[in-house]
Formats: sequence, C-alpha cells, structure tokens
Amino acid sequence: MAEPARPGLRDVREAERRLRERVHRTPVLTCTAMDSLARRSLRFKCELLQKTGSFKIRGALNAVRSLVEGGERPRAVVTHSSGNHGQALACAARAEGIPAYIVVPRTAPHCKQDAIRSYGATLVPCEPSDESRAETAARVVRETGGVMVHPNQEPAVIAGQGTIALEVLEQVPEVNAVVAPVGGGGMIAGIAIAIKALRPDVKVFAAEPCNADDCYQSKLRGELTPSSPHPRETIADAVRTNIGPNTWPIIRDLVDDVLTVTEEEIKRATRLVWERMKLLIEPTAGVGVAAVLSERFQAFPRDLEHVCIVLCGGNVDLSSLTWLTERPGTAE
Amino acid sequence: MAEPARPGLRDVREAERRLRERVHRTPVLTCTAMDSLARRSLRFKCELLQKTGSFKIRGALNAVRSLVEGGERPRAVVTHSSGNHGQALACAARAEGIPAYIVVPRTAPHCKQDAIRSYGATLVPCEPSDESRAETAARVVRETGGVMVHPNQEPAVIAGQGTIALEVLEQVPEVNAVVAPVGGGGMIAGIAIAIKALRPDVKVFAAEPCNADDCYQSKLRGELTPSSPHPRETIADAVRTNIGPNTWPIIRDLVDDVLTVTEEEIKRATRLVWERMKLLIEPTAGVGVAAVLSERFQAFPRDLEHVCIVLCGGNVDLSSLTWLTERPGTAE
Ligand SMILES: Cc1ncc(COP(=O)(O)O)c(C=O)c1O
Ligand SMILES: Cc1ncc(COP(=O)(O)O)c(C=O)c1O
Repeated sequence: MAEPARPGLRDVREAERRLRERVHRTPVLTCTAMDSLARRSLRFKCELLQKTGSFKIRGALNAVRSLVEGGERPRAVVTHSSGNHGQALACAARAEGIPAYIVVPRTAPHCKQDAIRSYGATLVPCEPSDESRAETAARVVRETGGVMVHPNQEPAVIAGQGTIALEVLEQVPEVNAVVAPVGGGGMIAGIAIAIKALRPDVKVFAAEPCNADDCYQSKLRGELTPSSPHPRETIADAVRTNIGPNTWPIIRDLVDDVLTVTEEEIKRATRLVWERMKLLIEPTAGVGVAAVLSERFQAFPRDLEHVCIVLCGGNVDLSSLTWLTERPGTAE
Repeated sequence: MAEPARPGLRDVREAERRLRERVHRTPVLTCTAMDSLARRSLRFKCELLQKTGSFKIRGALNAVRSLVEGGERPRAVVTHSSGNHGQALACAARAEGIPAYIVVPRTAPHCKQDAIRSYGATLVPCEPSDESRAETAARVVRETGGVMVHPNQEPAVIAGQGTIALEVLEQVPEVNAVVAPVGGGGMIAGIAIAIKALRPDVKVFAAEPCNADDCYQSKLRGELTPSSPHPRETIADAVRTNIGPNTWPIIRDLVDDVLTVTEEEIKRATRLVWERMKLLIEPTAGVGVAAVLSERFQAFPRDLEHVCIVLCGGNVDLSSLTWLTERPGTAE
C-alpha cells in the first residue's frame, strides 16, 4: 500500500519561517531537584507557556498559513477537538481572519468550550461518539465550504510541531535525548523528523500512558495497532487518541523507543513539577516527566546525560481549586 | 537620630558578583491576555522559578557569602521565619557548608517545616508569638555562637534582593515602571536602590494588601507607622510583616508610590496568573499583579507603557489540591 505524503526537514524549516514572530520561542528551564530525582541533567522545554497554553498552536497555525500562502484562502477551517487543538485552531484562524468551526461533544467541560469561544470560534455540538464527531465535522465542511484541519494526521500540523525540535537543538546543543508524550503522534513525529535529519545521534523517545498504549503496541508488533474502541481511562486526557496512518510510518522509522507509565507515575510526576518547578502543567505533560523518572529510564546508559523533556501543555481545569477563591485569609 | 548603614548601588553590584552562577537569572515572560486586561505591555520577572521557589535566596546567599568573604566564617547562621527566608537561608548555608538554625512557630504548616528540613537545617520550635520568636532566636545565637540574618532589615539581604533590578534593566531595557510586593521591605528597597541609581526615570511601585498596609500608612504620614500588633488577615501571608528601621528610609526616599489592593483583587490576580500564564505563583506574588490591574493603576498615564511585575514566589501549599492525587481518570 502506498504510504501517504510524508513531511520532511524542509517542511519543518518552512513551518519555522511561517511561525516566526507569531508564536513564542518558549524558554528551556532546569531544576536541580528534578535532576537529583532523575539522576540526569534535565532540560524542560516549556510549551505550556506557549500561546493557547500548549504546543498545538504551532501545527494549527502552520496549517492555516500554508493554506493562505498556497493562494487558496479557505472560507473556513473546521476540526473536531474539544481540547488543545480546538483552542489552537480557533486562535490561528482568528489571527488570519478566517472563521473557525469547532465540533465539540455536548459533554465537554464548560471551561474548554469557553476557551474555544474566547478565541471567537463557532462551537458546533455533537454527540459524544467518534461517529457523531466525524459526521458532524463532515457536514460542517460541506455547509461552510471550509477545510478540515486534522489535529495530528495533517502533514502541515506534523511539520509545525517539528519546530519544537529546531528550537531545542539551538537552545540545548548538548542534548542527548528528547522525550515527548504521544497521542495521535503529530508532535513526536514532527520532532523525530527534525532531530533525525539534523542530529541522528540524539535519541527520540515517545512517552505514553499504559492505559492508552497503542503506540507502544504498534512498535512492538511492527504494525499500526489501535487500542480497542473502549480503552481504559487515563488522567492524561490529551493522549487518549490513537496514532494514525500518517504518523505511524514516521514513528516506526524514526522514534527510538516508546516508554509507558502508570496512572500513579503520571500523577506523581505532575505534582512534582507543580511543587518543585512551579509550572502548572496538565497531567498529559506529566507523562514525559514520569517516563524519565521511571525505573526503566534510570537503567539507560549514563551517557544519555542531557535529556530534554517537552512540557507540552498547561490547560488544567482549575475549577476544583476552590481554596483560592473560597478560603478566607489564614493565619500562618 | 542617626540612620543605620544604608546599602547603595555598589553593594548591589557586589551582591551580583557574589551570586553569579549561584542563583538563576530568572526569565522574563509576557502574556498577551494579561496585557489586554492591564492595557499596558507587561513583563513578568519570574522569581517563582528561582532556587528555593522565591527571590529570598538572593538576599540570604549574599548575606552568608559576605560573612564568609569578610574572613569571619560564621559558626552558624540563625533566623526566625517559617516562610521563604527560612528555606532560603537553609539553602544558602548548606551551599557554604555552614549549619543553619531556623526558629519556627510550633503552629507553622508541616509542608513549610519539611521544606526547611529538606535543606538540612535544624528547626528550633517556638511559641507562635513575636516575643517567643525573638527570644528563642537570641538564645540560639548565644548557644551556637551563630550570626542572626534578619529576613529584611539586614543590609546584605537588601542589597541581594536589589540584584533583581539589575537583571530587569538588562532584560527589559524599555521598562518604564517596576512593581513588587512589600512586606518587611527588603525587596522593594533593594530594587529602588538599583533602579534610582541607574535609571531614575523608571518608576518604582510597592504593592501591599489593604489588610496589611503599614508601608502605605508610613508613606502617607511620612514616618514609620507599623500596623497594630493584631493586623487583619491576608491571604498574602509573606507580606504580613511590617517594614522596619533599615528599609523605611530607603522606601521613604526612593519608592514612588505604594498601591494597596483588596483580598478579592489578590485572589483574582493569583488565579489569572495560574490560568493564563500557567505559573503557580503564591498569593503574595498576586499582590503586584493585582496592583497593576487595579483601577487606580489603569488611570496612570499611558506613557507608563512597559511595566515589569516581580512574580516573587511560588511556594504554595498544594496539599489542598487533592483532585490530582485522588480522582480516578476521568472521561472527557
Ligand atoms: C498537551 C498535549 N500534549 C500532547 C498531545 C499529543 O499530541 P499528538 O496528538 O500530536 O501526539 C496533545 C494532543 O492533544 C496535547 O494537547
Ligand atoms: C514571596 C514573597 N514575596 C514578597 C515578600 C516580601 O519581601 P520583603 O519582606 O523583603 O518586603 C516575601 C517575604 O517573605 C516573600 O516571601
């Protein structure tokens, strides 16, 4: 079977040019307490400080600007995602003055719906099933004459996420390994493309919850192996998705290994980053941290010394943090 | 009455040299959402990302290293503070291999006691009253032959905190105003010394809770006016302290204005920084943000365009954040 168009380094470089001055070059931070726990020298690429609170703006904006530059200014852009890609596409579309329609399950948390709305996008409710999402999105595309921008299989999205790696190579030239969570695989595929083209000596690791380990299973069997339609739950909600036909061949060929972590490990890692680094990552970003703190990683050779972890997002629902708004001043 | 030794720019420069490579040069971040709310161009100096989770390591380490460089290596250092200065002094002492004794009220939260202990300091419990604190600290100084390092009136501490301003002037040369919370006044005094010596055109504003407004009252009356011994409560626990004899003359002469904010404003500002910036500041750091978002500040001339807010600390008690450790994975 012919493989679909596969983005390369040149596409990532083009994305870099398109995104210049339009997204943040996020800082890379260090933390000695985390270094001691991991017994390596860690670098944290802070995509939670990116516009819209996650790296997703890179892929979304690259996709929208590619369309605009291609001369066919879209009448609208459409996607189904109640999560970070929905916000990112809404923000990217607004920046280009293009209407955005985001298909969202009726059951999605209000805070996420509000965030998407705050970027001026139109929310289109659907039932909380994959079929309803896909059908509704297809209908919106027909009705608006818009273009569908897939959150992780769209090549321009993959190339956009790859710009994270270009920055990491500049900001951390001593890097020996890059670790990032994998959901649909757009981020890890983009990163792997750039890293393996420029610095094949640098290892690329995907990190995944045990409870949503389709990428791990796929690498193990050597073929795309989606999870059952009713996977187990994970607190890392943004990586519950399966990898797909466009990201799988890249992951198969360029990602060195997939590291799986338990729910307990994810929660502990997330909390550690909050407490020690003062960074409000979402649990999905804790997946990469958990992988590097895991026993399996500890057993990796010591010459994997400088490890860069992508802290991919910070869109936590804070509505449970009632203490800040409710508690009266307290005595020390 | 003769005024006490007052640190100057030269002391701040000396502190900068002593701290070089020993503390983080913290990043300055921006956030368009916050800019829109404030209707200015804001820069956030991220001292919550500093070692020990607050700027306090600057003053503490400068004090300890000044003693060591002075040739009289202290047998021990002592302070009374269950808060950020306690942690900072413990950390600074450990870095120099000097024992630290931190006098802490029996009622102080366990998480703070644990943090101090984790830096290898000895905790000395006292009763939760000012007299007991002072007496206990005096006794420990006698018994250990140690040196007391006051959290905000010690000149070397004031000079150390001033290094924040040297970095701000380099990182944000376009700055028109610097805003920082005031407790004992060590930070704002240090900042004012450096700013007014190097860039007298830059305004320096202290921010203070209405419920602990001794600095505001002192400026208003033109004389040091401590709050009553039983002040109202504030969620900004680190600035409940009064300014003192060493910081008052500096504040009187060099700080342009004191801006007071309500408890509601502090909570709202803190939450905004968490949600929009993904930075886990402690409520005390929200005081400066609240001041810049206040109506009074909005009325300031537009040519105060570039405003740098010091996000001074991130040592929040996360034990109330049970959702992360307790809730099972949830569906989207
Ligand atoms: C914060 C965060 N991290 C990681 C991912 C996974 O990215 P990808 O689907 O490209 O693998 C997502 C996707 O939504 C995300 O929002
Ligand atoms: C986080 C934080 N901000 C501000 C302050 C106030 O500093 P100063 O007492 O030097 O005014 C303190 C003091 O403990 C603090 O810990």
